Amino acid sequence: MKERMRMKTKTYWGGAAFLAVLAVAFPALAEEVKIGDTVINLAYALDTFYFLMTGALVMWMAAGFAMLEAGLVRSKNTVEILLKNIALYAIACIMYMIVGYNIMYGDGANGFIPGLSFFLGADNTVDAVLKSGGETYYSNMADFFFQVVFVATAMSIVSGAVAERMKLWAFFLFAIVMTGFIYPVQGYWKWGGGFLDALGFIDFAGSGVVHLCGASAALAGVLLLGPRKGKYVGGRINAIPGANLPLATLGTFILWLGWFGFNGGSELKVSNIEEANAVAMVFVNTNTAAAGGLVAAMTLSRLWFGKTDLTMALNGALAGLVAITAEPLAPSPLLATFVGVIGGLIVVCAIIFIDKAKVDDPVGALSVHGVVGLWGLIAVAFTNPEGSLVAQLTGAVTIFAWVFGTSFVTWFVIKTIMGIRVSEEEELAGCDISDCGLEAYPEFTKDR
Amino acid sequence: MKERMRMKTKTYWGGAAFLAVLAVAFPALAEEVKIGDTVINLAYALDTFYFLMTGALVMWMAAGFAMLEAGLVRSKNTVEILLKNIALYAIACIMYMIVGYNIMYGDGANGFIPGLSFFLGADNTVDAVLKSGGETYYSNMADFFFQVVFVATAMSIVSGAVAERMKLWAFFLFAIVMTGFIYPVQGYWKWGGGFLDALGFIDFAGSGVVHLCGASAALAGVLLLGPRKGKYVGGRINAIPGANLPLATLGTFILWLGWFGFNGGSELKVSNIEEANAVAMVFVNTNTAAAGGLVAAMTLSRLWFGKTDLTMALNGALAGLVAITAEPLAPSPLLATFVGVIGGLIVVCAIIFIDKAKVDDPVGALSVHGVVGLWGLIAVAFTNPEGSLVAQLTGAVTIFAWVFGTSFVTWFVIKTIMGIRVSEEEELAGCDISDCGLEAYPEFTKDR
Amino acid sequence: MKERMRMKTKTYWGGAAFLAVLAVAFPALAEEVKIGDTVINLAYALDTFYFLMTGALVMWMAAGFAMLEAGLVRSKNTVEILLKNIALYAIACIMYMIVGYNIMYGDGANGFIPGLSFFLGADNTVDAVLKSGGETYYSNMADFFFQVVFVATAMSIVSGAVAERMKLWAFFLFAIVMTGFIYPVQGYWKWGGGFLDALGFIDFAGSGVVHLCGASAALAGVLLLGPRKGKYVGGRINAIPGANLPLATLGTFILWLGWFGFNGGSELKVSNIEEANAVAMVFVNTNTAAAGGLVAAMTLSRLWFGKTDLTMALNGALAGLVAITAEPLAPSPLLATFVGVIGGLIVVCAIIFIDKAKVDDPVGALSVHGVVGLWGLIAVAFTNPEGSLVAQLTGAVTIFAWVFGTSFVTWFVIKTIMGIRVSEEEELAGCDISDCGLEAYPEFTKDR
Repeated sequence: MKERMRMKTKTYWGGAAFLAVLAVAFPALAEEVKIGDTVINLAYALDTFYFLMTGALVMWMAAGFAMLEAGLVRSKNTVEILLKNIALYAIACIMYMIVGYNIMYGDGANGFIPGLSFFLGADNTVDAVLKSGGETYYSNMADFFFQVVFVATAMSIVSGAVAERMKLWAFFLFAIVMTGFIYPVQGYWKWGGGFLDALGFIDFAGSGVVHLCGASAALAGVLLLGPRKGKYVGGRINAIPGANLPLATLGTFILWLGWFGFNGGSELKVSNIEEANAVAMVFVNTNTAAAGGLVAAMTLSRLWFGKTDLTMALNGALAGLVAITAEPLAPSPLLATFVGVIGGLIVVCAIIFIDKAKVDDPVGALSVHGVVGLWGLIAVAFTNPEGSLVAQLTGAVTIFAWVFGTSFVTWFVIKTIMGIRVSEEEELAGCDISDCGLEAYPEFTKDR
Repeated sequence: MKERMRMKTKTYWGGAAFLAVLAVAFPALAEEVKIGDTVINLAYALDTFYFLMTGALVMWMAAGFAMLEAGLVRSKNTVEILLKNIALYAIACIMYMIVGYNIMYGDGANGFIPGLSFFLGADNTVDAVLKSGGETYYSNMADFFFQVVFVATAMSIVSGAVAERMKLWAFFLFAIVMTGFIYPVQGYWKWGGGFLDALGFIDFAGSGVVHLCGASAALAGVLLLGPRKGKYVGGRINAIPGANLPLATLGTFILWLGWFGFNGGSELKVSNIEEANAVAMVFVNTNTAAAGGLVAAMTLSRLWFGKTDLTMALNGALAGLVAITAEPLAPSPLLATFVGVIGGLIVVCAIIFIDKAKVDDPVGALSVHGVVGLWGLIAVAFTNPEGSLVAQLTGAVTIFAWVFGTSFVTWFVIKTIMGIRVSEEEELAGCDISDCGLEAYPEFTKDR
Repeated sequence: MKERMRMKTKTYWGGAAFLAVLAVAFPALAEEVKIGDTVINLAYALDTFYFLMTGALVMWMAAGFAMLEAGLVRSKNTVEILLKNIALYAIACIMYMIVGYNIMYGDGANGFIPGLSFFLGADNTVDAVLKSGGETYYSNMADFFFQVVFVATAMSIVSGAVAERMKLWAFFLFAIVMTGFIYPVQGYWKWGGGFLDALGFIDFAGSGVVHLCGASAALAGVLLLGPRKGKYVGGRINAIPGANLPLATLGTFILWLGWFGFNGGSELKVSNIEEANAVAMVFVNTNTAAAGGLVAAMTLSRLWFGKTDLTMALNGALAGLVAITAEPLAPSPLLATFVGVIGGLIVVCAIIFIDKAKVDDPVGALSVHGVVGLWGLIAVAFTNPEGSLVAQLTGAVTIFAWVFGTSFVTWFVIKTIMGIRVSEEEELAGCDISDCGLEAYPEFTKDR
């Protein structure tokens, strides 16, 4: 957490300084005068509570991805995508506790090679916090909680792109590697204070570290998997409609809500005027970028296709959210809206283009999180005076190269060992029956 | 925000006063002693965080309306209602940022004519907050965030009432006018410190300003639209059941949860004992009024119809929530329960009556938000010693007249320009195909 | 709340002490110096806000149970289970306000017989809080709000187990007795400072007081009801698949999220370093126990049945949550994961065993909340140094005996008066039509 933490703790020096001075002036009172400490206690509690509540919102995003993806696949693959989503969250939580968190925020040998240790250490003692005069300002466990839900988000991106054709346990194996190692290493490079951070690469809440990362891992899987049967037949591109669009819409609403935690919590402190203002600005910009993305994608789909496509509107909102994630603090709300608008326009084009390229991504995850994640990183150069286009591109390329490369190898090894794709009959019958032995909607679906 | 803000900041004077006195007593210490400032910082942060968290809960209500309405319409109009709901939220956020917020809380020429300006200003500086001694006690951006989600709520009410027959883009056009102008003007009259506020009209969180407002706009649309095909044939009233009642129930739960933010955040301050007690009381009363409304509506439906109607129970809970919204602080929990109970009884009667009057409201929005919104305003005269029946009725009539009138004109203009109703064939086939080119549940629905 | 409240308020003495000392040193300043009071105000506000936000999360669990159960029953009984879930929440809120809360936290004659009084009293006055020097540290109303949502959770457990065959209003009658009397009495014995608490029985957030309690009441109902028609025919056990697994998954996600409030809020204080650390630890352990439970149940189902059963995975997550609830603070995250893993293994076995015993529990509530609730209580003896196996078992037996006994009598009386089971024809046609006059999915279901 070193670099990610902003050290704006100056308002708290007052407490400790006052205590010290007063103790000199009235030695007899020194023991009694604890009010400065109490203030440090309160600020620590508020910041910790802020982490926990925003972290809970991010955890809720796991439900959002589950609903979004369950709504966008066919009913015969719904149980499996639900199981993948909730299980990947569990796997991410365990792997990140065992090793991932330490890789990401441990002491690295240098800015490239992270440290290696296991399990979580002890939390801050009261004495240490007081002695720091408030510089140590929130619980380590709250920090872990906030971080762990981010890993799960990155992994959730993968499940959608490989939906409807990947073996369940192959996916789980990949999730172990991704959440325990691949994600934490690039996370270390930026948020753990590694070389990307030193380079001036800016990524407030993870357009790159989370979203581009997830999409890069997904792309490797998609390329090795190939498209779903029946998707590209001859020269034709067949649309495969999702089975339950209210679920997909619910998922988008959940993600929108959760994103307030995702971006809002990434300010990492709320307990003074400046920080509170910053968190509020992040909430407003996150919201308005999503709104801009939705309106732009919806309007473009109406103009382009003649119909106002709900799924494009949903992806537009998500694109706005991804786009603003790299810098939700610096721009004005109006500028943030435009960052979202551009994200919304990009995502429609990207979905069409990627489909034309016969790369089969059932939920549009590569476009939303990959292409627009890249736009989010680039946008920083225009919205944050400290942003540098070169640094942003270096970061994007580094993250992509690392995650795509290691993911490709991982998927390939899993493919070699146990295969990653279900058999043709299983795919036709649906993964739900073959992998899970259950139907998602046994009473509703027409006979196939 | 002038009038809405309660200026109970007295406990914070201590900080500044102490600082001043101590600086006189020990001039040498003056520079160092910042503890009073730190306390002001902390309170500002807590209140800002409180706004953001309660605002996030209100944002979540947009998902609640989407699910409620999507569950209560037929499957062939589900995509469209989903799209309307999520898009109106986006439109509301953008329009209120561009102009609506400034109309509502800007400097009006007088209590009737609001000011006009655009976009959001800067947030409070640290100096200004400290100099105010804590009177300026939370982020402007957090205030905007909390306010913007209320506009979206008002607009969400409209979408349900005009469901299954209104053109998509006609609805969006109306949303622009409603969220940018119609809502903010009447909001100014009360919460912006206009003449309704001066009159002693009480509306804590918006039984009138939000709910009656939304229902009035909806009524104008419904009257211009006419009922759905097949709803009233000859002398018969045909029930048109909703396609997905779990969604409708989920929507109600979401709204119930979000209402803790809606009412709880409207206390506008939490950072001292009195305010914290007040917020807690608001939570308890909001919850128990909903419970009372649900039990009353459910019981009445059982006695009246012989069956215990889930949709009546859901509308009863919402009625309880709407009813308590005008004054959730003053009554005891027992009295709040009764306010909800009466709301629940009213809503069942209103739904039956409005249907008998052949005003077609697919989700009961006119009854829940309009009729019960009026009851909520009236109830204030009985639950708050400062409430005056005359002032409450004046407020209700003013809001209705303004919103219904301007909405009627707006709908009429839109109707003239582009039409507001889909064609008969489109209505029979469903708006989803004609407007959105998608089906909500392509694998489930029986052939029509 | 006497015993449940942990009296770690020492850091606040500083404020009052400082004030007193300074008033002596500078009598003239005494009136002005209010900063200590302001700090007490702030801490009170933060703790109250923490109760309200965590309470809102627990309220959200009611939606989780509704979705979980609605997803796991057949479509013909879906409206009824939705109505039961939302109405039981309302009933619980009203009954607990009228009498339950007072029974649970009133002044009992002794540790066995609780006091009896009605409605809620006044909240703390500002003077009383300041005079207490911060020992009285949060709003009574916030406390009520946090407590009332727990009662609803206990009652929600019942609805699932008796699903698809119990009369609607018989269930509501039981809910009145359960939430007004049965639950509060055993709650008094532990959290109200009764004899179980004196005995050293440890139950942090209610593996026993809430979950085992709910399951015990459910068991009594299930035994009196008998299994669903067609469930056990001859020697065969027929699986009756749930109609909507995305809903069940959504419900599990909601419960997982809500549990952060359930356990996290049960620390009952957040406003200093130690307490903030404790709350953070509770969040982390709650999360990781759920993750462990899910992975364990999922893996066991794969090994045992050859298929990876989504419903087992969901029940595994819930089992992890129930298991850690009795002691989410003392264990390390790794140990907490194991507590969850064992919970996840137990729940799969329990579901199979209970089904083999021909006790028909459509959603697995007896296993998740009853058997694993017991495991949670026992686990305390291994994870908390102060835990005693004897005390834990005494608590478990006492809760079971009381709740099962009084519930059995209550169910029996209701059965005698009005019957508790729907008629055979009604059961075949589904409770939705007979009890509610509505279908949950009128357009989707195949003709039966």
